[in-house]
Amino acid sequence: MADVAESERRILVAVDEGEESMHALSWCLKNVVSQNSKDTLILLYAKPPRDVYTALDGTGYLFSSDILAAMEKYGADVAACVLEKAKKMCKDLQQDAKVEARVENGDPRDVICQMAEQLSADVLVMGSHGYGLIKRAFLGSVSNHCAQNVKCPVLIVKKPKTNAGSK
Amino acid sequence: MADVAESERRILVAVDEGEESMHALSWCLKNVVSQNSKDTLILLYAKPPRDVYTALDGTGYLFSSDILAAMEKYGADVAACVLEKAKKMCKDLQQDAKVEARVENGDPRDVICQMAEQLSADVLVMGSHGYGLIKRAFLGSVSNHCAQNVKCPVLIVKKPKTNAGSK
Repeated sequence: MADVAESERRILVAVDEGEESMHALSWCLKNVVSQNSKDTLILLYAKPPRDVYTALDGTGYLFSSDILAAMEKYGADVAACVLEKAKKMCKDLQQDAKVEARVENGDPRDVICQMAEQLSADVLVMGSHGYGLIKRAFLGSVSNHCAQNVKCPVLIVKKPKTNAGSK
Repeated sequence: MADVAESERRILVAVDEGEESMHALSWCLKNVVSQNSKDTLILLYAKPPRDVYTALDGTGYLFSSDILAAMEKYGADVAACVLEKAKKMCKDLQQDAKVEARVENGDPRDVICQMAEQLSADVLVMGSHGYGLIKRAFLGSVSNHCAQNVKCPVLIVKKPKTNAGSK
């Protein structure tokens, strides 16, 4: 049996620039990670490949290499910023947990599934949407895909609606 | 914010006659329910409506009322047996947790979503398949549906493959 000692788990959390994944991380820190545990949190940011951007113009030829380089840089900045924010949240909510951060290039659906396997995650935590409306249109629902393909338990956390009921 | 005190959560676990849901319950007891907590586990067994059975014969007329009554009785027995087994597991793994058991009639997809809402569950735990091959063909993937429609966090736990690689 794949019984897991509660104190030595590898918890993979897929984070992105959306608020929902930060909420998922926060929920996980409060409800899954136990105080005084030896849990390792692995924060994973999947950076979609360039063809997701080039696909946006419909032809693949519109963007100059300058623009592509700028987008690449922008993507790296976003990744760093997201992971910084996520690490800070881990520190604020669970001081003792070990935290690792990773950026991987590729379709988030594939990256997350591959990493869950490769890192022998004991549980995968993610928001239900994420990756923005536009990217999602190209990529489909990331959480659906992962819930179906990842072997370890998958925890999908939705962001509660605000009172205004927006989004 | 819907922040939840870790000690007063309502954890809804959908159980059925499959081994996978028992594995999901076991994982939840070991990894989500904390020792000495005031967590309440609500074990939910959804009993599919009769038309799932009658649909099996393709006409809806093949089964006599005796057979339907026997099936009804069989269904109730299965529910009781599943919940007994689940309650025993709770006692074995988390003596202190409060445990409630419920049987609700209806399409498991609807029942689970409704109950998550109605009982203000803080998290829904379920296997990824469940409800058997035949019923699944009629009902579709229960966990997929719930992950998309339930507002609270959803934890989907798959049964690890045995070495023989069966199923």
